[in-house]
Amino acid sequence: MPELNLDSIAARLESLEETIIHRLIDRAQWRVNDTAYLPGASGFPGAEPRSLFELRLRSQEEMDAKFGRFCVPEERPFNKDLPKPLREVHLPDTGVHLKDYDVVNLTEPLLNSYMLILPKICPAGDDGQYGSSVEHDVYAVQAIARRLHYGAIYVAESKFRQDAEGYKKLVEARDREGLMERLTRKDVEKKIIERVKAKVKSLQAKVNRSIRNTIRFEPIVVYYRDLLIPLTKHGEIVYLFNRVENDSN
Amino acid sequence: MPELNLDSIAARLESLEETIIHRLIDRAQWRVNDTAYLPGASGFPGAEPRSLFELRLRSQEEMDAKFGRFCVPEERPFNKDLPKPLREVHLPDTGVHLKDYDVVNLTEPLLNSYMLILPKICPAGDDGQYGSSVEHDVYAVQAIARRLHYGAIYVAESKFRQDAEGYKKLVEARDREGLMERLTRKDVEKKIIERVKAKVKSLQAKVNRSIRNTIRFEPIVVYYRDLLIPLTKHGEIVYLFNRVENDSN
Repeated sequence: MPELNLDSIAARLESLEETIIHRLIDRAQWRVNDTAYLPGASGFPGAEPRSLFELRLRSQEEMDAKFGRFCVPEERPFNKDLPKPLREVHLPDTGVHLKDYDVVNLTEPLLNSYMLILPKICPAGDDGQYGSSVEHDVYAVQAIARRLHYGAIYVAESKFRQDAEGYKKLVEARDREGLMERLTRKDVEKKIIERVKAKVKSLQAKVNRSIRNTIRFEPIVVYYRDLLIPLTKHGEIVYLFNRVENDSN
Repeated sequence: MPELNLDSIAARLESLEETIIHRLIDRAQWRVNDTAYLPGASGFPGAEPRSLFELRLRSQEEMDAKFGRFCVPEERPFNKDLPKPLREVHLPDTGVHLKDYDVVNLTEPLLNSYMLILPKICPAGDDGQYGSSVEHDVYAVQAIARRLHYGAIYVAESKFRQDAEGYKKLVEARDREGLMERLTRKDVEKKIIERVKAKVKSLQAKVNRSIRNTIRFEPIVVYYRDLLIPLTKHGEIVYLFNRVENDSN
């Protein structure tokens, strides 16, 4: 069983921040384009009530599923009933205790939270580029989902190993508040938020603003602080309940 | 017919640079992973002689084709015999004179050139993450292809309009050297290369190198100078020949 070092997990989470920011910046090169998210306005005949974005996300995930993406714990799909992998995927032992990875699947609240951030990063209005918009949405939500599930699953497992008895007691007492308190490291959260803020700025420091849209750091910071970090901890709690009650072997 | 202003075309080309660099940096988070490019080593039973990368690119383009990506002049596919769009795509008049967009399709040399840059940006060796590697390859080559074809098609049309008679004469004389000379603006090329160099640096200026791989600016500069810019001009010449001989209306 591999050692799950909290520092290397934190380093991986940190390295995913640039990818998330890159993809949000790329999405922000197009306008909000509400139509791409309206049910029945996809332009695909007979696709009602799905939106173009939903159709694109489903198509992407059907392809990804065949390529074996969801064989990895932190790659959780937004859709159900996806095709089986057509490839043989050989993965090393992850050290994660999760018979069914989808026990920790937070894609639904993630998707809702993404729709809230869109109008805060993209210029208002409609430029007709719906195809490009949803293509970049899919890249963005997949990067965010990877960060969210990696954090939830691996941080929880690593913390559990540091104090298995303590976490077991809290789970058995169904003490969610106590769990949340024990999982929370205010100093680490503050550092993440400061770092994300600095990255949004530095990644765009030299950009020519007359020809490329930029994103402000505020919505990204709020997104991390109020959505991504709390959602990750929620996922950690789900993991720990399952770890103690179902996957204790 | 829309006005095709060379400055706004140049601005769009400039804004695509960040996207290309973002995607190359994202790809460089994985090792070279030769196996992903070997025929018959995809792990898909019966997929020989295709590599995992080829299979991924084809799957992506089949999806993209259904969503109407290739209805746009600068989005040229790497594969042939792709499905028809399932969406009705409404595009404004582009101003481009190209009945068959694939007259200017430089994806084959682009792909070869991409394979040359990979070992220069990714850490050597094999980390087993073939699925992630080819996913990011596809994003990268699509971004490069967009830049290449947008440049070739729109720059050529815009320059043609500035001096239709001059270009007609050169085409009719089949004077490729003369065309190349007239299309070349050494000062602009130098500026692009300087700018790309600065962007590769500034986009990674604040990155934590102990946890995230970085790319050097040299291979990107060489790529732009020796491959992307010459290939764009080659595409411009193809466009101009076709413009004069087949699409002169």
